[in-house]
Amino acid sequence: MANDKKLVEAITSMEEDFAQWYTDVVKKAELIDYSSIKGCMIIKPAGYAIWELIQSQLDAEFKKTGVENVYMPLFIPESLLNKEKELVEGFAPEAAWVTYGGSEKLQERLCVRPTSETLFSDFYSNSIQSYRDLPKVYNQWCSVVRWEKETRPFLRSREFLWQEGHTVHATAEEAEARTEQMLNVYADFCESVLAMPVIRGRKTEKEKFAGAEATYTIEALMHDGKALQSGTSHNFGDGFAKAYNIQFTDKDNTLKYAYQTSWGMTTRLIGAIIMVHGDDSGLVMPPKVAPTQIMIIPIQQKKEGVLEKAAELKDRLSNFRVKVDDTDKSPGWKFSEAEMRGIPFRIEIGPKDIEANKCVFVRRDTREKIEVSLDDVESKAAELLETIQADMLEKAKKHVAAHTYSAATYEEFKKTVEEKPGFIKAMWCGEQACEDKIKEDTGATSRCMPFAQEEITTTCVCCGKPAKKMVYWGRAY
Amino acid sequence: MANDKKLVEAITSMEEDFAQWYTDVVKKAELIDYSSIKGCMIIKPAGYAIWELIQSQLDAEFKKTGVENVYMPLFIPESLLNKEKELVEGFAPEAAWVTYGGSEKLQERLCVRPTSETLFSDFYSNSIQSYRDLPKVYNQWCSVVRWEKETRPFLRSREFLWQEGHTVHATAEEAEARTEQMLNVYADFCESVLAMPVIRGRKTEKEKFAGAEATYTIEALMHDGKALQSGTSHNFGDGFAKAYNIQFTDKDNTLKYAYQTSWGMTTRLIGAIIMVHGDDSGLVMPPKVAPTQIMIIPIQQKKEGVLEKAAELKDRLSNFRVKVDDTDKSPGWKFSEAEMRGIPFRIEIGPKDIEANKCVFVRRDTREKIEVSLDDVESKAAELLETIQADMLEKAKKHVAAHTYSAATYEEFKKTVEEKPGFIKAMWCGEQACEDKIKEDTGATSRCMPFAQEEITTTCVCCGKPAKKMVYWGRAY
Repeated sequence: MANDKKLVEAITSMEEDFAQWYTDVVKKAELIDYSSIKGCMIIKPAGYAIWELIQSQLDAEFKKTGVENVYMPLFIPESLLNKEKELVEGFAPEAAWVTYGGSEKLQERLCVRPTSETLFSDFYSNSIQSYRDLPKVYNQWCSVVRWEKETRPFLRSREFLWQEGHTVHATAEEAEARTEQMLNVYADFCESVLAMPVIRGRKTEKEKFAGAEATYTIEALMHDGKALQSGTSHNFGDGFAKAYNIQFTDKDNTLKYAYQTSWGMTTRLIGAIIMVHGDDSGLVMPPKVAPTQIMIIPIQQKKEGVLEKAAELKDRLSNFRVKVDDTDKSPGWKFSEAEMRGIPFRIEIGPKDIEANKCVFVRRDTREKIEVSLDDVESKAAELLETIQADMLEKAKKHVAAHTYSAATYEEFKKTVEEKPGFIKAMWCGEQACEDKIKEDTGATSRCMPFAQEEITTTCVCCGKPAKKMVYWGRAY
Repeated sequence: MANDKKLVEAITSMEEDFAQWYTDVVKKAELIDYSSIKGCMIIKPAGYAIWELIQSQLDAEFKKTGVENVYMPLFIPESLLNKEKELVEGFAPEAAWVTYGGSEKLQERLCVRPTSETLFSDFYSNSIQSYRDLPKVYNQWCSVVRWEKETRPFLRSREFLWQEGHTVHATAEEAEARTEQMLNVYADFCESVLAMPVIRGRKTEKEKFAGAEATYTIEALMHDGKALQSGTSHNFGDGFAKAYNIQFTDKDNTLKYAYQTSWGMTTRLIGAIIMVHGDDSGLVMPPKVAPTQIMIIPIQQKKEGVLEKAAELKDRLSNFRVKVDDTDKSPGWKFSEAEMRGIPFRIEIGPKDIEANKCVFVRRDTREKIEVSLDDVESKAAELLETIQADMLEKAKKHVAAHTYSAATYEEFKKTVEEKPGFIKAMWCGEQACEDKIKEDTGATSRCMPFAQEEITTTCVCCGKPAKKMVYWGRAY
């Protein structure tokens, strides 16, 4: 049946055009739709269900570290935004401004929040008096707006969903510890839940967040060899506290400025899942965030007993996120559809299987077919989901390892960027001039100064002066 | 210790000034704080945790009925909003308008969503072709903005959190069934989770939602005898489908307009919990939405073994949301604080209790003290939480019954509104003129035409013409 392949044929292959492949997957797997507002996306059920699974598992990790959730207003008065100079310079060019409430012009413009440091700082300024009020470890789940010119679903859009943590502490040490702690929560989450290895490190001065003393980042490598910044954690020192007057009386009875952090991850992670794990048949979902983990597909479903057996299997597997596809589409179509949606494995069951007291598990990631006795489906399903989760991480790790290069000389560096998409490890003198030159010459940017430093050479790959840091470089989304 | 009573003394009594009592509770129980944007509130951890418990339990009920979650953009282009006349007239006066993106003036103004019928309709118009695409039963959790002049925390604010369900169906019957189904989900949720009895009924033409064919509502009675509209469910018929061109090819191969519904509940429910259950010591939380269900308060905690025993109890009660207050505040202060926050019961345990192998459960709702053997704490705690949940509903039901009156004549009606705050059941001819007159004369509005109709008299309480419906009337928030 020619129709069976329709879903898959509609996808451009990765090799041919990776950007188009990405867009095709996003649309064909029904994750998003475009809206009538340019650059704003509609997140459809299949996409939002992934976000719900990310949110619930990440939120649980936050709460283990003492995070409490709150909700701050959507709007920031212009005067409040203007209090911190670097922040306003960073965000004003892409702010959306509310100027009218009903038919009345507002006395002061309101910015639709691009990020909420200002609101949290204002709140902390009013509500913190004593060391007894510290620390505050707050987070919110919300949407933010940045009026970007170029947009791509999940990766860069004018509105996106995220969480933003904002904490305030009595000491610089405590703020630094929280900044690093949350980066590690992010990295562990990406690896254990999204099956996505990341490089943990610090951003250079040039790449750090507006107003931050230090920005830490996790950087992931996509299938096409481009890097994706996947989560960041910022230490603000007492800079915002000085701009917003967040002072407290310490135990020694003196008035001190407080220390702050912020950290965020976004719906961009869904883009990362697609580009790390996907293939030419569509999505490949890690079991822990797969909205449907198992699809049962009855074969010759009109034959007596087949649909009943499929329903019985579903009941027995109800500890998992399981569905039966009992629509009147052909099995081939159903296989393609389950593959497009990245369902970790499907179970095929037909009259002959039932007669032989078995069914067939078909893995999405490897396409391996496994005959399973109907007596063992529960234990084998649990096992296979764990295996797939672990194997997907291993495969992604191997991809990162195979696409991470070292460059000792600038010639080598330029040749690698040009010919071998991936991460390049190379030494750096610490000067922004070299970062600028590298970007201009190659399009690669400094992704991070990894916590795990190595000494590739002793001199800067660009200028030849003594090196201070080993840096991961790469072209990025 | 004079200080022990500080929290409580700071609350105005309900009898003295109910509105001030409400504001005091909201602030002292640390549910919200005011922000620098007039009419927008900061929902603090204690308030947001209630919303999280409402959200997770309500969302689970939605999903049982086949609801899928999505996310629509925050903005509505003015031209899209203008397509449905009644809706635009209803919402334009309180719309917040974005006119600038960065430094560029937008070609078209964007409304910050006050509700998302327009966006869902536009989406459905583009994505529905055939009867096979129906029904769609979508919902989103988000914030909405309505530029209100008068605001009160949770009850009426310029931004609030809510869920909005938007469904589309092939037939009018199916849309009507979904509208009523969701109203019943809401009513059952209020009763079983929030311990809040509600009247289920239909709004009059005057009070229905802009653009709806029928609006159903649940109306709750607050402690002061005022009504609070607590959730609504709207049947739009095919009105929006005609305005937004949502057509599908039916099984008979003809093109038809689709039928739509929408339904919502908001953070206003937190206001309802406060005003239905609260007392002069603060909040009284129904166990199912209490962020902390049990507070363990050690007595003479410096004595050997007391804190250890408290920690041990906490571990044994870890199936519940339990905390130990081991701060250095006095027990009296801790009692007041646990009461202010509405924690369903506290456990007092001191050296003498430990010696006698017992502890004391103190109920928040009745203040009853119950001695419990340390051998039985798990089972007794589970039992008591269930008892409190059930008793709170019973108490609230009695309050509604005791404050629901019937009026046969207009004199009686006016006297009742004036002297006995509560619901008034009275007959109505169906004419808006009588609703208008009643409102002008008494301040009472029609709350709903209850599903459970009674015949109080045969004539309209206002004009004396033949009655068509029994209506619940009352002053309302």
